Amino acid sequence: MITTDILIIGAGPTGLFTVFEAGLLKLRCHLIDALPQAGGQCSEIYPKKPIYDIPAYPEILAGDLTDKLMEQIKQFEPGFTLGERAETIEKQEDETFIVTTNKGTKHHAKVVAIAGGLGSFEPRKPPIPNIANFEDKGVEYIIRDPEFYRDKKVVISGGGDSALDWAIFLTDVASSITLIHRRNEFRGALDSVDKVQELKDAGKITMITPAEVKGIVGTDKVTGVSVVQKGGEAFTIETDHFIPLFGLSPKLGPIANWGLEIEKNAIKVNNALDYQTNIPGIYAIGDVNTYPGKLKLILCGFHEATLMCQSAYQRIFLDKKYVMKYTTVGGVDGFDGTRKEAPKAVIKKIE
Amino acid sequence: MITTDILIIGAGPTGLFTVFEAGLLKLRCHLIDALPQAGGQCSEIYPKKPIYDIPAYPEILAGDLTDKLMEQIKQFEPGFTLGERAETIEKQEDETFIVTTNKGTKHHAKVVAIAGGLGSFEPRKPPIPNIANFEDKGVEYIIRDPEFYRDKKVVISGGGDSALDWAIFLTDVASSITLIHRRNEFRGALDSVDKVQELKDAGKITMITPAEVKGIVGTDKVTGVSVVQKGGEAFTIETDHFIPLFGLSPKLGPIANWGLEIEKNAIKVNNALDYQTNIPGIYAIGDVNTYPGKLKLILCGFHEATLMCQSAYQRIFLDKKYVMKYTTVGGVDGFDGTRKEAPKAVIKKIE
Ligand SMILES: Cc1cc2nc3c(=O)[nH]c(=O)nc-3n(C[C@H](O)[C@H](O)[C@H](O)COP(=O)(O)OP(=O)(O)OC[C@H]3O[C@@H](n4cnc5c(N)ncnc54)[C@H](O)[C@@H]3O)c2cc1C
Ligand SMILES: Cc1cc2nc3c(=O)[nH]c(=O)nc-3n(C[C@H](O)[C@H](O)[C@H](O)COP(=O)(O)OP(=O)(O)OC[C@H]3O[C@@H](n4cnc5c(N)ncnc54)[C@H](O)[C@@H]3O)c2cc1C
Repeated sequence: MITTDILIIGAGPTGLFTVFEAGLLKLRCHLIDALPQAGGQCSEIYPKKPIYDIPAYPEILAGDLTDKLMEQIKQFEPGFTLGERAETIEKQEDETFIVTTNKGTKHHAKVVAIAGGLGSFEPRKPPIPNIANFEDKGVEYIIRDPEFYRDKKVVISGGGDSALDWAIFLTDVASSITLIHRRNEFRGALDSVDKVQELKDAGKITMITPAEVKGIVGTDKVTGVSVVQKGGEAFTIETDHFIPLFGLSPKLGPIANWGLEIEKNAIKVNNALDYQTNIPGIYAIGDVNTYPGKLKLILCGFHEATLMCQSAYQRIFLDKKYVMKYTTVGGVDGFDGTRKEAPKAVIKKIE
Repeated sequence: MITTDILIIGAGPTGLFTVFEAGLLKLRCHLIDALPQAGGQCSEIYPKKPIYDIPAYPEILAGDLTDKLMEQIKQFEPGFTLGERAETIEKQEDETFIVTTNKGTKHHAKVVAIAGGLGSFEPRKPPIPNIANFEDKGVEYIIRDPEFYRDKKVVISGGGDSALDWAIFLTDVASSITLIHRRNEFRGALDSVDKVQELKDAGKITMITPAEVKGIVGTDKVTGVSVVQKGGEAFTIETDHFIPLFGLSPKLGPIANWGLEIEKNAIKVNNALDYQTNIPGIYAIGDVNTYPGKLKLILCGFHEATLMCQSAYQRIFLDKKYVMKYTTVGGVDGFDGTRKEAPKAVIKKIE
């Protein structure tokens, strides 16, 4: 059982910044995310694209925003359960919560902050009849660790940025890379498309287009895929892995059944006070919540996280009064023993 | 008469970021500030100190935060009335507003956003009987433009960062600098104190301590100050300017008499919706407002400004529906003709 003060569901920008604000209040956090990495939409959907409305950043790439947040919260040693989806929640007699993931990992916390964005990201699966039998037996919809493919034969299918970028990345790792797409045209960043063209010309990526994978070949694990090129016959390509990259789509999923008030596929909260839901002790912040005038913007999640942490503090330390100190004035004391502080003014004689 | 869509009172971080959010909605802004420069508390009180809780900035100097915000809003060409205090407001028949400053400058706007922080910064004046007669005739409490002191004799009094830093800065500008302080000890950044010591040793700053200025000498303008050194007799120092730097203290001031609901020296707003005050069309955002759970933090002002601009948009364009577009997706079109946008994805054949 993982124990923590605030359990944060969703490691997008809102969830990450919550760790910082909680840390200032000496509260520890643990984050669960269905994705294999932190950053939410920013790292999954548009890591290389610029955002222009993060206050005081005239421009920042979404991936860099995630990196900066990770750096900012490092002092507060957040825990992470990645690649797992929060599935069930049980309120205990002492008003604490136990949250269990789809893989059975249990988390015990005094407060739960749902920062689930548009929902947990689930891969779009191609309509291949026997594919479910091979999941985690050679079929992967998300690449968790590229090293897993070291010296293996890999077939990727898809025509967008993920398919292009992983095909490029894995040429240095896998023993062979085949890229299958149902059109001749790919859609992505210009340099990614050009790079794939180059790797194809150099014989490092085998391209099969326009074509589709129609079946998986193998007994207890993938040994090949059956491919049909437009207007042609089915043929088999030997491979150790088949990675269909058709995008991820967010689903509010299990959280929708936790007894929370839901409106427009989002969780209603008390925005006049602390972004708490109808269940005391469960808060919802960032894209996942709704209230009159709600804007699904990153900067709004930051504010909501900050007010939410103050309320969580009151809930955890019933009658302790928190006196806010500016970080500039009080400094920042990490749980890792580090301290950030402004250079002190001196009182000194001039003679 | 200066005309604009949103008149912002206060050019602190909240007021500045409002220009950006308004700009995204194609609304123009003009800012009034009692200080000679933008940045509010950040640039007036602690420009060289680090802030640690600006989201995605593990550390940023308060002065740099101001610079970044100025850079971010540049595209939207904000107007500034600096060094003037907003004094009166009159609602017009057409529900627009006219705001007049203490110097008589008039501003006409559809919406007013008060981002006045702790109030307009007013200098603490030393108790010198005849000082009022010499204000703007050689006595200045705030340095607006250092060039004004080119080749002039200057006496500065005070023992903190401002006195130290301006004494240092003006040695290269003024023909002579005298620094008077009622103690031998100064309180400031170590390198400022050391630098003043160095300039004194090099004969570039004359120090008189422990001492106080007791009177101003002159007829229609300052020609000298009368100084008493501890335990000694009064003597006169010839000077063109006397600059007492005893700090600024914020005063809510005239805004307190605008008919707004005031609580704890701050303006009550509707935080459940749009940070509007009890007077429709007047909003209050940032440190200047209050509501249950309010935190006087910079990141909160950013969120409040953003929601407020959406509401202002509805007020100005009664029945036009605003469809929010992410900056990443829609880009940012400045009023200055510039455009920021993410590199477009291409659709391209690989052959
Ligand atoms: C293309 C694009 C451009 C954008 N541009 C901008 C912009 O310019 N400015 C701006 O402010 N915003 C922009 N946004 C929106 C911005 O990305 C979101 O507002 C932001 O990511 C919300 O952060 P969050 O932390 O609330 O949620 P998310 O980033 O959505 O993160 C939520 C995380 O929670 C996880 N999760 C959800 N449910 C569960 C569960 N049950 N178990 C485990 N994990 C779960 C998800 O996997 C996800 O990783 C853009 C979005 C897109 C798609
Ligand atoms: C030493 C110190 C350290 C701090 N550290 C932090 C920190 O670490 N993190 C953090 O989030 N915050 C910190 N703060 C607080 C932060 O600076 C404020 O929250 C922030 O400046 C508020 O911004 P604002 O734009 O709302 O108001 P302000 O910055 O106060 O700006 C308001 C402006 O309005 C002007 N004004 C007011 N009334 C009038 C009028 N009638 N006419 C003309 N002009 C007017 C004032 O002159 C002023 O320039 C700190 C503050 C101090 C003093």
